[in-house]
Amino acid sequence: MTGTKTRILDTALDLFNRHGERNVTTNHIAEALGISPGNLYYHFRNKTAIVAALFERYRQQIWEWLPPPKGELTWQDKMHYLQGILESMWQGRFLHRDLPHFLHQDPELRAEYTQFVQDGMERGLQIYQGLRASGLIEASDEDLRALMVNTWVLAMSWPGLTHGLNPAAAENETLDRALLRQGIYQIVCLEAPYLRGEALNHLDAMKAEFRVGDTTVNLLFTASDPHVGEVSNG
Amino acid sequence: MTGTKTRILDTALDLFNRHGERNVTTNHIAEALGISPGNLYYHFRNKTAIVAALFERYRQQIWEWLPPPKGELTWQDKMHYLQGILESMWQGRFLHRDLPHFLHQDPELRAEYTQFVQDGMERGLQIYQGLRASGLIEASDEDLRALMVNTWVLAMSWPGLTHGLNPAAAENETLDRALLRQGIYQIVCLEAPYLRGEALNHLDAMKAEFRVGDTTVNLLFTASDPHVGEVSNG
Repeated sequence: MTGTKTRILDTALDLFNRHGERNVTTNHIAEALGISPGNLYYHFRNKTAIVAALFERYRQQIWEWLPPPKGELTWQDKMHYLQGILESMWQGRFLHRDLPHFLHQDPELRAEYTQFVQDGMERGLQIYQGLRASGLIEASDEDLRALMVNTWVLAMSWPGLTHGLNPAAAENETLDRALLRQGIYQIVCLEAPYLRGEALNHLDAMKAEFRVGDTTVNLLFTASDPHVGEVSNG
Repeated sequence: MTGTKTRILDTALDLFNRHGERNVTTNHIAEALGISPGNLYYHFRNKTAIVAALFERYRQQIWEWLPPPKGELTWQDKMHYLQGILESMWQGRFLHRDLPHFLHQDPELRAEYTQFVQDGMERGLQIYQGLRASGLIEASDEDLRALMVNTWVLAMSWPGLTHGLNPAAAENETLDRALLRQGIYQIVCLEAPYLRGEALNHLDAMKAEFRVGDTTVNLLFTASDPHVGEVSNG
């Protein structure tokens, strides 16, 4: 990929993630890069092509963030996988926030996304099976599959749901990332009943690492706040 | 509410749920009803107003489908609540499938939706606490809250995710409803580690009630199918 092409994708990703893809035109992207619209069109014929290229890049990154398990896994490996999910939610948040729109507007992307779901579920099951083989998780095959589906749904949906409730947070990276951290806390809670050995011994540490107590954003209710109705939505 | 107004909402809901709100105009709705566009505009000034009225009706129905717990609960009560969640996913599927779009286009709806999330979480917690008080669930306050958030996310996201992967299923009510039943199975699996007493004794019955083995649609992988890559997407 040429330098300009990479720079276009970097800039588009940044603008999409901060302002939402609907609010960013190809002219905005060209302007932010200091290139002409014509130069941009030379590399990407329209915004849909940029979204498709960003999805492809995102998909490749996910396989790196969530590598297949090798040998005996430790609870630190488990933490790395959780960090990998957080990173994927963060880098791809513009996609997650408006997924029905992208799947609707581009049938090719929908086909790619369907394949991505299948591959992602397979990779995730491999990882859960690796954790089980290492004595960090105990679950039947059926339970493990259902857990994988629920983890997938949570990771894919959390950025969109929290963004829908807190659209202004997208302008503030610290707040915006806090919203996503709480999603990882929710995944830890999802897995908690199945954890064993040193993963179970470190459950409180894992929760503490991702739990967000900040009530200046609507986190679908933080675990520590007993006053459900009082959570503000700033 | 006048008869015509109710008929407009009934017809709009049916068309939105089957074809997606983006593909249905106010003229389509008027035509399906055999009334003039002018008559429709007399009752609703635009499509956004119809969506807002449908959301309001949906919200009222949810409080009826998921009533506050009264006295000792049984596992049959638990089943009724699961049926209630299925019914809410089914009736409101057009909303769930394109939620970011609706929240984005109508700031008033976003405010109403935020309140709905808070009220819904509170009602859900009441129900889970009722199940706990009746000995059907065992969980700490923190676990119960995290479970409630995960149940909420799953119920809200499942219709959109499965629809995104199977858009053609919307034209076939049997298939379309099967997609949603599998979401309830996923909620049962989410709750499974916390079930006790007769709820635990009936866990297999609850799973069997909602598990869908049909592989002609992509159900984000049915629990019974060990061949992840082979699930077809027809």
